[in-house]
Amino acid sequence: MAEAVAEADIRPGEVRIEAGEAADAELRFIGRVRTPWTVRADCPRQGDPEGGPVCRIEVFEPWVAALEGIDRHAWLEVLYWMHEARRDLVVQCPRAGNGPVGTFALRSPVRPNPIATSLVRLVGVAGGTLRVRGLDCLDDTPLLDIKPDRSRG
Amino acid sequence: MAEAVAEADIRPGEVRIEAGEAADAELRFIGRVRTPWTVRADCPRQGDPEGGPVCRIEVFEPWVAALEGIDRHAWLEVLYWMHEARRDLVVQCPRAGNGPVGTFALRSPVRPNPIATSLVRLVGVAGGTLRVRGLDCLDDTPLLDIKPDRSRG
Repeated sequence: MAEAVAEADIRPGEVRIEAGEAADAELRFIGRVRTPWTVRADCPRQGDPEGGPVCRIEVFEPWVAALEGIDRHAWLEVLYWMHEARRDLVVQCPRAGNGPVGTFALRSPVRPNPIATSLVRLVGVAGGTLRVRGLDCLDDTPLLDIKPDRSRG
Repeated sequence: MAEAVAEADIRPGEVRIEAGEAADAELRFIGRVRTPWTVRADCPRQGDPEGGPVCRIEVFEPWVAALEGIDRHAWLEVLYWMHEARRDLVVQCPRAGNGPVGTFALRSPVRPNPIATSLVRLVGVAGGTLRVRGLDCLDDTPLLDIKPDRSRG
């Protein structure tokens, strides 16, 4: 787990806390996200549901049946687990930012529960695989959930 | 846990699977959501960030420092844990719907990882407490994350 990252990896102005155990609830990975990006520096800062590359979401069994009817939705919200992120910073200094900011005022992957949400356009469905535009994460990122976008039904 | 709910609670047409253990990643509850709704039947179907009631989000220590700078964002995304939801249905029959639909084609609380996302308007911040409009969940729901809304910076 990235939680064991050394204190030395913190930038000046960042604040680390002793987060304690994360054992309040448990997640299951229900699939994985396939993207063209294998190192974090290559990931776009934010996905582009119009012009971004088509990526794949692979849903694992026994969850494939839960995709029934998803093709009625052009816009989906995808939740995934940022498995490489540390979880113990309360104040961060983003590379592109102006000094220290609280973790909840940022969309940085570094957060107490590293769950990302992306809004994507559905391009196609075949079996347990969705093709979508709008992702911004590393290849092989664990998938947590797929929902129709709230604002577009 | 609600996962032990009896087979008899399933509506005709719904499909339950043996989901197995959920032990791929662990969550910590970082606060709780306070709303006027104490039973699920009273919760609105979807939060209203304009006209809905002002609700409170209470962030617990040691995470309060992570709110620094959040007042620069009028719109926030709130992630919370739907602790009362079962997690083993792949096909569901929503009360208001037309027959069985896959879980990922619904925003129902019943899903393999019952994480909800809500878009809220920030009304005010004092210490570790935010006042917001747009929530739709039960009182005392465990909080997982707060982020600035992606589309509004």
